[in-house]
Amino acid sequence: MSLLPSSFRLGRIAAPGLKHHARQYATLFENQPQRPDVQTVLPGPLSVEGRAKLGRVFDTGAMRMLVDYERSQGNYIVDADQNRFLDTFSQIASIAVGYNNPHVAKAITSPEMVRAMVNRPALGNFPSTDMADILTSGLLKAAPPGLSSIFTASTGSDANETAYKAAFIWRRAVERGDVDFTPEEIASSMNNKAPGAPEYSIMSFDGGFHGRTFGSLATTRSKAIHKLDVPSFDWPSAPFPKLQYPLDQFAQENAAEEERCIHEVERIIDSNPKPVAAVVVEPIQSEGGDNHASANFFRELRRVTERRGVLLIVDEVQTGVGPSGKFWAHEHWNLPSPPDMVTFSKKAQAAGFYYGRKDLRPKQPYRQFNTWMGDPARALVFKAILEEISRLNLVENAAQTGKHLFNSLEALAKKYPHEILNLRGKDRGTFIAWDSPRRDDVISKALRKGILIGGSGARAIRLRPMLIFQKQHADMLVETLESILRDE
Amino acid sequence: MSLLPSSFRLGRIAAPGLKHHARQYATLFENQPQRPDVQTVLPGPLSVEGRAKLGRVFDTGAMRMLVDYERSQGNYIVDADQNRFLDTFSQIASIAVGYNNPHVAKAITSPEMVRAMVNRPALGNFPSTDMADILTSGLLKAAPPGLSSIFTASTGSDANETAYKAAFIWRRAVERGDVDFTPEEIASSMNNKAPGAPEYSIMSFDGGFHGRTFGSLATTRSKAIHKLDVPSFDWPSAPFPKLQYPLDQFAQENAAEEERCIHEVERIIDSNPKPVAAVVVEPIQSEGGDNHASANFFRELRRVTERRGVLLIVDEVQTGVGPSGKFWAHEHWNLPSPPDMVTFSKKAQAAGFYYGRKDLRPKQPYRQFNTWMGDPARALVFKAILEEISRLNLVENAAQTGKHLFNSLEALAKKYPHEILNLRGKDRGTFIAWDSPRRDDVISKALRKGILIGGSGARAIRLRPMLIFQKQHADMLVETLESILRDE
Repeated sequence: MSLLPSSFRLGRIAAPGLKHHARQYATLFENQPQRPDVQTVLPGPLSVEGRAKLGRVFDTGAMRMLVDYERSQGNYIVDADQNRFLDTFSQIASIAVGYNNPHVAKAITSPEMVRAMVNRPALGNFPSTDMADILTSGLLKAAPPGLSSIFTASTGSDANETAYKAAFIWRRAVERGDVDFTPEEIASSMNNKAPGAPEYSIMSFDGGFHGRTFGSLATTRSKAIHKLDVPSFDWPSAPFPKLQYPLDQFAQENAAEEERCIHEVERIIDSNPKPVAAVVVEPIQSEGGDNHASANFFRELRRVTERRGVLLIVDEVQTGVGPSGKFWAHEHWNLPSPPDMVTFSKKAQAAGFYYGRKDLRPKQPYRQFNTWMGDPARALVFKAILEEISRLNLVENAAQTGKHLFNSLEALAKKYPHEILNLRGKDRGTFIAWDSPRRDDVISKALRKGILIGGSGARAIRLRPMLIFQKQHADMLVETLESILRDE
Repeated sequence: MSLLPSSFRLGRIAAPGLKHHARQYATLFENQPQRPDVQTVLPGPLSVEGRAKLGRVFDTGAMRMLVDYERSQGNYIVDADQNRFLDTFSQIASIAVGYNNPHVAKAITSPEMVRAMVNRPALGNFPSTDMADILTSGLLKAAPPGLSSIFTASTGSDANETAYKAAFIWRRAVERGDVDFTPEEIASSMNNKAPGAPEYSIMSFDGGFHGRTFGSLATTRSKAIHKLDVPSFDWPSAPFPKLQYPLDQFAQENAAEEERCIHEVERIIDSNPKPVAAVVVEPIQSEGGDNHASANFFRELRRVTERRGVLLIVDEVQTGVGPSGKFWAHEHWNLPSPPDMVTFSKKAQAAGFYYGRKDLRPKQPYRQFNTWMGDPARALVFKAILEEISRLNLVENAAQTGKHLFNSLEALAKKYPHEILNLRGKDRGTFIAWDSPRRDDVISKALRKGILIGGSGARAIRLRPMLIFQKQHADMLVETLESILRDE
């Protein structure tokens, strides 16, 4: 496999029934196990005991596994009972280059990292002398085409909210012109009232997910359990295309559906009582069940927003940093002009947004401001991850592994057409999902067979492996799925 | 000084004019410099160049100093031009135990830390086997009296918003009783409308600061520049007592003022169109200009909220972890019952909220949820900070240094009554402030004399030194202030 340095060990897949290609691939991660190993009932006795102990002081309601991170390696996660699983969920899509990656581990103990952790700076007031270098040799090296500046933040939610604030501040500056705030604006802002706190909105899409803090949650439309009982903003939401699969059999219907959605976007922007300052969209709606739209849809969205002076924010928190087979998923679209902002977090470990137009930086200081404003330590982690991605050509690996995996799943779907529905993610690397009429059953059986899989939406199974996921791991996954569908 | 291990080096203060007690104190931080050293104009040439370089990719509008963290030590911060300053601002009050603290540095390179950084977990789904131990030996060891559980978060804003969500979810659960969500609640929540997204509120106080994300910003009432152009919630704000100084001369007026504010709190809770689920308050309004209220005021606030079934959230993001001379500032109040939640961040480096009543943990999973839900790496940093605080008895040091500093400033205020007004923070450790008719001039002159000081509110000078700030540093500060007031 040409993308690998020859020094990498050959993987030997010893699990029975794994025939395809197993011996021809080298592993991208040394010392990782060759297969899953489940020895106890699930959860095992130590996991049950540990969960009870943690539950006394911490909410364990959503706990799926108590993890021994010391023993986890590469694509394999190990639980408290020393059961070992192939991990295709990777901490909700947030681990890029494998558990205990040695290159990242080395970066943690570097003098720069120790300095950044012990002396965590208030970045807006007191940046470090090496901050420009940390950014240009890391986060900015990965900047999407056309977007050469950055605001850093702490989490995906925080990244989106910072982008929303940039949009609102920008919009009011355009309208206000080059004049000072009026006394009325100043006074009303302190009472949370217009005009100082304007009745403006961010438009999102039905099924979208953009975070859990109050502003980002107002644009999240994935599931009621994410939103119930939390006061919200009266912001608009547009329909996201509901495509029919397989795509080639529904080309006309899907084109009409996308046109309908674009018209709705236009209608909302033109008529919403609270003016729309920005539209936020995920390249693939990830928490909402892996809903896709065509590149053409996104190009139209870019044209429509640009024409109307509305900013376009592409939320790449889950799609960014390689899994789609390109570093940023929106690079698949060939846009007529770049998005105004691209937000990121998760696999980047750092968070924030990229932007191009300089007028997204407020003229006055202390407007986009908080104590930490991001985290140089995580920027250094990102840099190490980026080096590893580049050294091992991992974006290309995701593209190649994804092609292979998609083809195998397509074959499996033909064999079990009532089990694997609406397979999606073709040519989107390992960012693959399908609908399953017995989703939770499949996920729980897979775990007992040693494969950790994530779900999303109402009935989607979503694959979110790391970038070091290879063909032999894909084969293991597909074999296991088949054994479940055969009802073994 | 009995609280110091005898192995600590004796400090030698060589700066001219520093007479008080200088030779009798050991330093709490080895190898830190003995005095400031400013050799260039400010900003120096390397700082100017570095700022321009960073400004090309990052917002430097609020930058105060480009910092060489490698050379900074203990209480001393060093800029790009190798000028050295005594730091009484400590990264907006967020550094507890000194630049390059060796004990914290050692914790960064520990195997537990490397694991926590390389394998950053999605804590809600996949906590580590050692998470319970990390919490009980660190964050929970510092839990305020009566509050034995914790939700972790990422920043102070995030901590407050998580607490607000807990309050809303709790309030609706009380009202709804032990029944499921109605179909109407589920459907309306997806449209950001009541009853699913209820028209409830969090009450804060005029002058309060609780963060910059949309929900926390709606409760922030410090300055217009923090809020302008950002859409907000129509949530109520009560007056915070405006005390007159010196306190002993205005006892009656101040008691009446506090009574007035408590009555307003009652009136708003009883009549606000959007029911108040919780009241959030800082022990000392920090960004708003160091506004204090008496312990009696807070006891009344606890009684009033308890009687009305409204939760009380004490925001200790800036006051927590020792600077007030107690670990948590609300421990000064002797409350009839503990606050319902206490939020923290900054000096803790970690973030989140403590709580006692178990019904603040939602019954359903995935409600208080996000990808990271805090950060075990920062919890380990907190643990190291806590060990250092305990080893060096630093809360007591803050109390003692604060007493000495307050007395010196009181004497200075008598000498310069038109320069130091409304001196406040007596018996609140080093959490001291005063109003200055020429605040920015004093701060900029102090910097040229080698002392970094912060401001807040309209004209306050606020002191926010680290917990290792000692009497010799206090003396240096007071001498410098006097030399400025003498117009030297």
